[in-house]
Amino acid sequence: MKTKAKSINKALDKAIPLVEPLNIHKAMRYAILAGGKRVRPILCLAACELVGGEERSAVPAACAVEMIHTMSLIKDDLPCMDNDDLRRGKPTTHKVFGESVAILSGGALLALAFEHLTEADVSPERMVRAVKELAKSIGTKGLVAGQAMDLSSEGLDQNDVGLEELEFIHVHKTGSLLEASAVIGAVIGGGSEEEVEKVRRFARCVGLLFQVVDDILDGTKSSEELGKTAGKDQVAGKLTYPKVLGLEESKEFVKRLKKDAREHLKGFDSDKAKPLIALADFIANRDN
Amino acid sequence: MKTKAKSINKALDKAIPLVEPLNIHKAMRYAILAGGKRVRPILCLAACELVGGEERSAVPAACAVEMIHTMSLIKDDLPCMDNDDLRRGKPTTHKVFGESVAILSGGALLALAFEHLTEADVSPERMVRAVKELAKSIGTKGLVAGQAMDLSSEGLDQNDVGLEELEFIHVHKTGSLLEASAVIGAVIGGGSEEEVEKVRRFARCVGLLFQVVDDILDGTKSSEELGKTAGKDQVAGKLTYPKVLGLEESKEFVKRLKKDAREHLKGFDSDKAKPLIALADFIANRDN
Repeated sequence: MKTKAKSINKALDKAIPLVEPLNIHKAMRYAILAGGKRVRPILCLAACELVGGEERSAVPAACAVEMIHTMSLIKDDLPCMDNDDLRRGKPTTHKVFGESVAILSGGALLALAFEHLTEADVSPERMVRAVKELAKSIGTKGLVAGQAMDLSSEGLDQNDVGLEELEFIHVHKTGSLLEASAVIGAVIGGGSEEEVEKVRRFARCVGLLFQVVDDILDGTKSSEELGKTAGKDQVAGKLTYPKVLGLEESKEFVKRLKKDAREHLKGFDSDKAKPLIALADFIANRDN
Repeated sequence: MKTKAKSINKALDKAIPLVEPLNIHKAMRYAILAGGKRVRPILCLAACELVGGEERSAVPAACAVEMIHTMSLIKDDLPCMDNDDLRRGKPTTHKVFGESVAILSGGALLALAFEHLTEADVSPERMVRAVKELAKSIGTKGLVAGQAMDLSSEGLDQNDVGLEELEFIHVHKTGSLLEASAVIGAVIGGGSEEEVEKVRRFARCVGLLFQVVDDILDGTKSSEELGKTAGKDQVAGKLTYPKVLGLEESKEFVKRLKKDAREHLKGFDSDKAKPLIALADFIANRDN
């Protein structure tokens, strides 16, 4: 995982050179090179290898999904959204560069994601599928649907909103891009329809897993430990798994999701499935 | 042109149904169905026909460029950008739906543009070229470069910034998407490399033409006549052609660009070039 993260960081550094317009590129680099676990790009690379593809061919796609993820973080942190000052242990992009540059650099990351994706050395057929998958994951059937529901659920009592709404938010807000990351990797790697669907189901488990753990951490760790503002879900009155299920049952849910994720990888070469299983375990056991 | 605009409006209405998340789709529809001249989609359709393609196959691409254009208007109008209250004769999107919904609906339009583009019934090879062209036109080599320079030039004296900087802003902010609209149409229509490059040069003239006329109108018409806040370039201390060249020479420049645009279409079937020439004339002679 560390090797993969390093090669992603190198590729991202190269993909966003410090050229004109300087302040925009500075902001883009600030936001994307600030650290981060690179879960989405690693998922993309590992899914490509799982189905027999070469890691190299999925690197542009892996960078693209991290660009989209970073764009969504910049947006989430804006004053009119979550109004957050801290991200990955550093001041948020709009705090450093101002709101207008933050918004422009978010849009630029989104555009660059699609441009960069098309650089990948794969057949046009696979490329078009990848573009479609990425676009769907960030629009009103994906990311935006989750963000919209998230905003409108703020301040509601947990009695008014159930597990179903909570899952809707997470499946869309966190899950859709994680799912797309894995699916795009599998498509680029040349996976069959059946293989791509298995990868999709695996990624859905991982997406949920990611969010349940995030919610548990938000309520139990400090801002310093997390590198971002802790307890903010509680302050914003947001729904979380510990709120709906209780802390213990949330932890049980993590165990079940981890097991389910493994199940979906049955039938693949077990050596090639190892990095994905390690990734799911890492997400389940992380402490920030 | 009216027929083409009507078919675009119909396709846009269908492309953005009023489904969940409702407030986001409402905002998207409010912004994109508010009117507008549909210059970019018409350019796209006409360029497709110019090179011998069928209009039908370019309709998704034509919708896509209008979605991108609308997204850029929503962004430009935001409080932290131009902070504008009026657009196409109606209150701006963030005025009606609030800032967070405006930002989300802008992002959703951008994502939908790429998703919708991939719906077009053309070969994957042409599609990948179209996606790349669209992505480039809205990133830091296109739209964002122009917006960034535009923001940083505000309040400067016209003596400090010359025609070169002014053209940079316009070539990127307005020109790049107009250029992409035409080029994507020509690519989807199956134009040869040489034909696509001719279309590109034509579109560059049209882009500049569009902006010079916009600048002239901004200084000489009322908000009511324009359907958007008039004189705002002057208030913001923005560079305009009349400021740099004077009003009369700006009008001369319009004539020269109109002539240049026609020149680039020489060699094409003159009947098929007519819609594009009519479009250039319309842009030159419009009064809002």
